Amino acid sequence: MKTAITPTRAENFSEWYQNLIVAADLAENAPVRGCMTIKPYGWAIWELMRDEMDRRIKSHGVQNANFPLLIPIEFFNKEAQHVDGFAKESAVVTHHRLKMIDGKLQPDPESKLTEPYIIRPTSETIIGEAMSRWIHSYRDLPMKLNQWVNVMRWEMRPRMFLRTSEFNWQEGHNVFATHEEANADARKMHKMYGDYMRDILAIPSIMGEKTPEERFAGADHTYTLEHIMQDGKALQAGTSHDLGQHFSKSFGIQFLGTDGKLQHAWTTSWGTTTRMMGSMFMVHSDDDGLVLPPAVAPYQVVIIPITREDTADALNEYAEKLGEQLRGVGVRVLVDTTDMRAPDKMWKWIKRGVPLRVEIGAREMESGDVTITRRDLGRESKRTIKTEELVASVNDIMRQIHDDMVTRVEKRNHDMIHDVADLAALESALANGEIGFFRIKYELTQCEQFDGLMEKYKITRRCLDDNNPEYVFVAKSY
Amino acid sequence: MKTAITPTRAENFSEWYQNLIVAADLAENAPVRGCMTIKPYGWAIWELMRDEMDRRIKSHGVQNANFPLLIPIEFFNKEAQHVDGFAKESAVVTHHRLKMIDGKLQPDPESKLTEPYIIRPTSETIIGEAMSRWIHSYRDLPMKLNQWVNVMRWEMRPRMFLRTSEFNWQEGHNVFATHEEANADARKMHKMYGDYMRDILAIPSIMGEKTPEERFAGADHTYTLEHIMQDGKALQAGTSHDLGQHFSKSFGIQFLGTDGKLQHAWTTSWGTTTRMMGSMFMVHSDDDGLVLPPAVAPYQVVIIPITREDTADALNEYAEKLGEQLRGVGVRVLVDTTDMRAPDKMWKWIKRGVPLRVEIGAREMESGDVTITRRDLGRESKRTIKTEELVASVNDIMRQIHDDMVTRVEKRNHDMIHDVADLAALESALANGEIGFFRIKYELTQCEQFDGLMEKYKITRRCLDDNNPEYVFVAKSY
Repeated sequence: MKTAITPTRAENFSEWYQNLIVAADLAENAPVRGCMTIKPYGWAIWELMRDEMDRRIKSHGVQNANFPLLIPIEFFNKEAQHVDGFAKESAVVTHHRLKMIDGKLQPDPESKLTEPYIIRPTSETIIGEAMSRWIHSYRDLPMKLNQWVNVMRWEMRPRMFLRTSEFNWQEGHNVFATHEEANADARKMHKMYGDYMRDILAIPSIMGEKTPEERFAGADHTYTLEHIMQDGKALQAGTSHDLGQHFSKSFGIQFLGTDGKLQHAWTTSWGTTTRMMGSMFMVHSDDDGLVLPPAVAPYQVVIIPITREDTADALNEYAEKLGEQLRGVGVRVLVDTTDMRAPDKMWKWIKRGVPLRVEIGAREMESGDVTITRRDLGRESKRTIKTEELVASVNDIMRQIHDDMVTRVEKRNHDMIHDVADLAALESALANGEIGFFRIKYELTQCEQFDGLMEKYKITRRCLDDNNPEYVFVAKSY
Repeated sequence: MKTAITPTRAENFSEWYQNLIVAADLAENAPVRGCMTIKPYGWAIWELMRDEMDRRIKSHGVQNANFPLLIPIEFFNKEAQHVDGFAKESAVVTHHRLKMIDGKLQPDPESKLTEPYIIRPTSETIIGEAMSRWIHSYRDLPMKLNQWVNVMRWEMRPRMFLRTSEFNWQEGHNVFATHEEANADARKMHKMYGDYMRDILAIPSIMGEKTPEERFAGADHTYTLEHIMQDGKALQAGTSHDLGQHFSKSFGIQFLGTDGKLQHAWTTSWGTTTRMMGSMFMVHSDDDGLVLPPAVAPYQVVIIPITREDTADALNEYAEKLGEQLRGVGVRVLVDTTDMRAPDKMWKWIKRGVPLRVEIGAREMESGDVTITRRDLGRESKRTIKTEELVASVNDIMRQIHDDMVTRVEKRNHDMIHDVADLAALESALANGEIGFFRIKYELTQCEQFDGLMEKYKITRRCLDDNNPEYVFVAKSY
């Protein structure tokens, strides 16, 4: 059977993914090393994702702010551990003017900065410095700040949405009077992310704590959300860190306690990025293109009038009216009245993952019927219903699509998690080409033999099992 | 009379402005040259401004996208005129890695880029390059794109919100098949900005075309929105450019016309920035602090319970209930139940410009009254009304505040625009310290004598008079 995307997932998953991005017109590689341009359809998805995440973040009492793009290099000198983890592969600004030299624009040597700046790879340092001035007493706590910004980490092997030098994210930075509150907050934001990913992106996450080897540079605890891709690889979709007093000590975030004593505060940070989009695209899509969960689909319904020359005007008008009715019940609708051929329109919107397709021909217009097809189920789900029934049930259909998507991923996740009793069993599974997450006793991974397996099979520890933290999940990853 | 902000506007307008920003807790200078940190209260105002602007932009059929932060230096080599106008004072990225050398983090010499990148000062070039690949035929036109991003232009004399090295903005870039459409679009977006500034920011703009001397580098026509500050200086709050075929020729944006011929497209660009915030703060605020138009006030109403120890709980609860009622009619309300003293709360929210203050004491709770004070009118507007009346009329009060703010600025603008018959009259007005905009025949400014006045009095041509383009407005400016 011919598929809209070639190669198929089974033939070559990673090439399928690249072609999916192109076919759905989501993004393209930019003429800047490692960076991408997010095209209007891709950005519309991100806006929906971002706005809902922002709403949830604010409902936790967090306020948005905006810190500078550039960070003085001296801030990283204070933070050796953080630098090792993050800042080394960074874009460095060394000049502030261009000059025409030998007929070519070049950095003006006279504009060389005494101290270079780094384009933020993350903002713990510059936000820490600000908080050290903003926080004085326990009355100022908790302080909960977030920003939606672009960050840069120089990537040698970029992949669109998954790993790009520049990416967009939200980074939350909270400060508390006690470690207990900070840790509870890190866990609460972790849970918030998990709920969001299930409720909005239709992705059930594997949630747990990172092992010490995989923690964020400078964190006491890192809580992660791992998604399982259709090829069995892991993708880290978000993290929440309990930073202890690490940053408060580096940057002097101190407060006068209720006891009148000056003490260091306890901080957390938590972030999610445009990478979530990559996960969502890889988790749900199929060989015909994108499959979008209704909550973040720019168009939840596309109406395609199957016109003949003599009926086009009446049919288009009828379709527009149905579109208005559906908008009236709160659904995002596109009525495609462009002059493309109907099958071309159909494939265009299949590839772009619109959850529900509605087709109307002249005969259907007369009988008051429409033909609907769910994107997630494909052509087998095609059926004809009355237009009134569609209007009455469209929100239920959206909910059903969402729930079915969650259930399918849940089942697949379940099938892709394998218990292995020891390293020999792990190696044999990997050697046999088994895909997915392998659950093994964490202490068994504390040896050179496991290090050898990591190297040989490109696996890493993803996180401890929340249900039994003596166990760890290991997997290949994006 | 003691004022909350010292010095007052009359004493020292520019110091008053700096202190206003601090007193209202809007922003602070960042530890990065020329940059600022926008604090939560300031950012909340921007989010309201941005979301409403975004809604209006989208209603014009524009789609958002996201282009890279960095621009290859070669893109500017193509654009000599643009570079002169813009790109020279730019942040230049020359390395992509840090290394510890002599115990200090430094750009790793081995990571030096063959071709440096510029942090975008504006994105005409990189968007032009993309559009040259995305546009093929007349069917792809018009193409209307916008992005909300941060940009950088190295500033030697920064002022918060008015002129900072990094700032946030929206930049729209539209492409058309004919010059007529492009020019109409540039004017349409210009008008959209004017409506927005009046309807949302309560600022009537002086709208007109820039003179050739003041045009955007590479534009055929630049349409500007000039605001008159309380000290009579001009602030350019937004611009819309008809770029002709300048960028389409530099970047090869061509399309097959309906006539089957390949031709260059016609482009526009239009932008507004966080600078609008600076304008809004300077136009409306007074010697007691910020005065915010209701449409962009994070809290439109603040309720302050005037508690005594024995009545605090009941009164706070009563105030919260009133808050809920007001939220129920669509108003953003803060009920300040913190343990500050009531007069301190009052001054805090006066300085932050909350449009309506509601005070409730124990006696008022019993009689069902509240005392309300409009921020824009001050203590003379204080009156006691029934709580039901407040709930019923609060939206009308908001509208009235907005309308009164517009009217006041309109009147002030009118008083600050002076007709001058010739250069002698202009010089005499300037020498006498008259403030405001001076309207003079444009042709009279085409001489060395005028150049001398520009130099001596730091005045510039702001724009041609839309009602009679033979005349030009000249003024000092921010």
